[in-house]
Amino acid sequence: MAGSSALARHIGEVALIDHHVHGCWSEPGDRRRFENALNEANTEPLADSGFDSQLGFAVRAHCAPILELPKHIDPQVYWERRSEFTESELAQLFLPAAGVSDWLVDTGITSGTTDIAEFTALSGNRAHEIVRLEQVAEQAAQAPGDYASAFEAILNERAPGAVGTKSILAYRGGFDGDLTEPRAAEVAEAADRWRDLGGTRLQDRVLLRFGLHQALRLGKPLQFHVGFGDRDCDLHKANPLYLLEFLRQSGDTPIMLLHCYPYEREAGYLAQAFNNVYLDGGLSINHLGARAPAFIARLLEMAPFRKILYSSDGFGPAELHYLGATLWRRGIHRVLHDFVEDGEWSEADAIRVVDLIAHQNAARVYRLGAG
Amino acid sequence: MAGSSALARHIGEVALIDHHVHGCWSEPGDRRRFENALNEANTEPLADSGFDSQLGFAVRAHCAPILELPKHIDPQVYWERRSEFTESELAQLFLPAAGVSDWLVDTGITSGTTDIAEFTALSGNRAHEIVRLEQVAEQAAQAPGDYASAFEAILNERAPGAVGTKSILAYRGGFDGDLTEPRAAEVAEAADRWRDLGGTRLQDRVLLRFGLHQALRLGKPLQFHVGFGDRDCDLHKANPLYLLEFLRQSGDTPIMLLHCYPYEREAGYLAQAFNNVYLDGGLSINHLGARAPAFIARLLEMAPFRKILYSSDGFGPAELHYLGATLWRRGIHRVLHDFVEDGEWSEADAIRVVDLIAHQNAARVYRLGAG
Amino acid sequence: MAGSSALARHIGEVALIDHHVHGCWSEPGDRRRFENALNEANTEPLADSGFDSQLGFAVRAHCAPILELPKHIDPQVYWERRSEFTESELAQLFLPAAGVSDWLVDTGITSGTTDIAEFTALSGNRAHEIVRLEQVAEQAAQAPGDYASAFEAILNERAPGAVGTKSILAYRGGFDGDLTEPRAAEVAEAADRWRDLGGTRLQDRVLLRFGLHQALRLGKPLQFHVGFGDRDCDLHKANPLYLLEFLRQSGDTPIMLLHCYPYEREAGYLAQAFNNVYLDGGLSINHLGARAPAFIARLLEMAPFRKILYSSDGFGPAELHYLGATLWRRGIHRVLHDFVEDGEWSEADAIRVVDLIAHQNAARVYRLGAG
Repeated sequence: MAGSSALARHIGEVALIDHHVHGCWSEPGDRRRFENALNEANTEPLADSGFDSQLGFAVRAHCAPILELPKHIDPQVYWERRSEFTESELAQLFLPAAGVSDWLVDTGITSGTTDIAEFTALSGNRAHEIVRLEQVAEQAAQAPGDYASAFEAILNERAPGAVGTKSILAYRGGFDGDLTEPRAAEVAEAADRWRDLGGTRLQDRVLLRFGLHQALRLGKPLQFHVGFGDRDCDLHKANPLYLLEFLRQSGDTPIMLLHCYPYEREAGYLAQAFNNVYLDGGLSINHLGARAPAFIARLLEMAPFRKILYSSDGFGPAELHYLGATLWRRGIHRVLHDFVEDGEWSEADAIRVVDLIAHQNAARVYRLGAG
Repeated sequence: MAGSSALARHIGEVALIDHHVHGCWSEPGDRRRFENALNEANTEPLADSGFDSQLGFAVRAHCAPILELPKHIDPQVYWERRSEFTESELAQLFLPAAGVSDWLVDTGITSGTTDIAEFTALSGNRAHEIVRLEQVAEQAAQAPGDYASAFEAILNERAPGAVGTKSILAYRGGFDGDLTEPRAAEVAEAADRWRDLGGTRLQDRVLLRFGLHQALRLGKPLQFHVGFGDRDCDLHKANPLYLLEFLRQSGDTPIMLLHCYPYEREAGYLAQAFNNVYLDGGLSINHLGARAPAFIARLLEMAPFRKILYSSDGFGPAELHYLGATLWRRGIHRVLHDFVEDGEWSEADAIRVVDLIAHQNAARVYRLGAG
Repeated sequence: MAGSSALARHIGEVALIDHHVHGCWSEPGDRRRFENALNEANTEPLADSGFDSQLGFAVRAHCAPILELPKHIDPQVYWERRSEFTESELAQLFLPAAGVSDWLVDTGITSGTTDIAEFTALSGNRAHEIVRLEQVAEQAAQAPGDYASAFEAILNERAPGAVGTKSILAYRGGFDGDLTEPRAAEVAEAADRWRDLGGTRLQDRVLLRFGLHQALRLGKPLQFHVGFGDRDCDLHKANPLYLLEFLRQSGDTPIMLLHCYPYEREAGYLAQAFNNVYLDGGLSINHLGARAPAFIARLLEMAPFRKILYSSDGFGPAELHYLGATLWRRGIHRVLHDFVEDGEWSEADAIRVVDLIAHQNAARVYRLGAG
């Protein structure tokens, strides 16, 4: 952090709640796996180096020193140095360095990554579960008896140990179209059809809608993947404005819009329009690297300051869990320092907003105790 | 304004024409009303403080000194100080401080706000009327006889005293879909149907289209609410690109695209594409607060400089009528100062563009005399 | 270029490949023609001066010195000075000053502009042809015999002398809707229908789709006009996200997304998502003038650095071919200098990325030899 102002010091030290994150790799892998993890959108093997991107440059700038390498070290040396460690050792270096007190872990992807207990052990911090709705659906499809009852039973069984739910509707048809609650008969019919097809990778709209309304009923914060992701997602259908009608009927359940790029201004508008809507810039901040400050500034437009959260959306290499925090600290400092310099904000205001985004909003909305 | 350059002095002193504004509150209200007025998008009582937003921070930064409070004073003190004045007294403090010569007042919302005569008296400036088309429609629905004739009669009666018209089509179904002129029989049929339902809150597409084409025929500037507003508006249907076909058939009548966030770049494109299209950033500038300069810079992209206007869209608290002017002056200075510093513009060019946006474009398009 | 760093010197001297450009004017014209050429979007005679825009200001700032006039000279003097030269003389001043080694010329518009041989002679550089698919279609419509065979024959005859193809689908219905390969019978039927109507200005969707798939089969880079253009284009249908399904089926043929404003962030996402997708900011950079750096920065967000190219999209006045290069050099310096200052990139990285965008990516993708 440039500067030694009270604001800079505070941002450098503030504890974060990373309200949307996945596990770290738990198994060894080759350089190809690592470079592909530096590209979010492409689902095929990369033709070029994953290092030749903002994220790749940011890893070399900010993660290299954690491995006792100079900033901007070249990719080959970075890879060789990284290979001297196991993934667990890397997690033990990068996770604590992030300055996070609580990680809210989406457990919907499990293969080859750490579970919550491992994550807690490696980071030395608290970890909490976010239940993925499509996973509950797939479990219900394999359970005996009535689908709707099975879904409710599984959700109610998992919910007490979890702090929220998550939907990847963006990857399963997108937001546009009807998102009202389906009738019981429709659900039963759709479930029969899906079970006959094997009951895997839920794409049925009726059942997706059913899951969302179960999550609303549960009342714990409901996260939505929004915007930027891999190319299986039709990005234009992941525009959160298509959620408008759903949000109008969502009651008091907190709705968390994740990632949001390039729709962060639309998401900010929704956070102003609805008492129960929140947003973050996880995933995007890592991939934007040197351009993250401009994005973080846009998150601070229409959204009230009590509606913005921090997350990294780290997944796979432990670098990403650390880098999210580092880029956010650098970016929010750049943005708020300028607001203060310009006479638009007081430094005390800036420090207060840092606390809101860093942890207070997440602690309040997810009802996280002091631990 | 930072700096003492000729540009900074000119921006600080230039008289503005605020080409889209509403009345100030004429009745006393409580803190809840005030805080809700700091949030545009939410139509429900706020769960959090309206002060915790860019607009709230901007009020504390720039309006507090008008009430002889320090910049960034805390919300409670601001509210208490504000409560020592009547709304009329506040208007008499804030309106003249805006440095506006002419206010173009949308009289479509009347309850609890000042009318044109009161506005003139409180500000000490000229005020002119903008006639809201949906209000004319609702008056025509209540009038005896043929709807179309009644609409034309009312519009023609009100037009000589007005400088333009306004449509809130964005709130009544949005821009996408057919916007051609309906046939007389369609209009008559739709009017019968609407009158049977009571003839309030016009939402009938045929009658909305009828009103737009009457306004085109009148030839006075026609304002459109575009983009950002409250959540009754489907924001994605308020994208001005959906007006393309209508604009292609709009002839010479000036079309004014208001607010525009987050579609200001699309609106700028339309201002380049059509001789009769103009844009402003009213409402958005207030709500963006410390982020207003970035938005003002985007207004200066594709739009020719003779197509950009100033407005505040102030409505309710007189702070907003003042703040719009203050944030615009600060923002345009920031942006143009940098253009000049970079060697991209001369200072003389910058001063000329300030005059165009501040008042010359509005005076020309609305045919405002020297008064 | 401000500054005398190694980065600034490198950017000032680096040779460019302008991978998308049109001819210069070959015939004399009046001031009206010149001013209209400063406005891309409007297809009607301008009501106001074309100089009152970012592009107009940029011409006065950066082109005036090439004509030995002071920066920011007023439009009248600029026009008078320009009128002392023929268009060929202007081309001989402006083209070599751009610092371009290779021009890739779209020969789809021919009236009143230089052909490839003239362009080579005037610039003193290499020039290569890009074949416009809709032009091939119109030639096939006029050829005897089966349309599909004629199209293939013409394309195969022209291809060996060309380095790529281009589609203006954006102007002929836009990207949304089916873009799969049509069946032979459909093509034959559509061709008959079109030929009966005269076979000019292709708008038939079936035949447009046919041409795209012929270009994919050819395998040379296929350029798409994306986003910003003149008002015949429905801008919202030129959003490159509507190409997603087509891109998923495009195999290895390089797809070049041109211009992209205001969808450059969406285009950058596609360049990350697909190994074969590239983007540039030609046309937009010229029209953005003093605002070009902000746009160039957004091009450097999600797109991997081996997927970004340089172009001017110059067409008509030779000023535009020069200005594109000048604004790009100034803008990329501004952006990368800040990344280096902030400690996000090393200067060596910045220089390497400049080389990639300036010429290496284009040389690799279009297989341009050392000449």
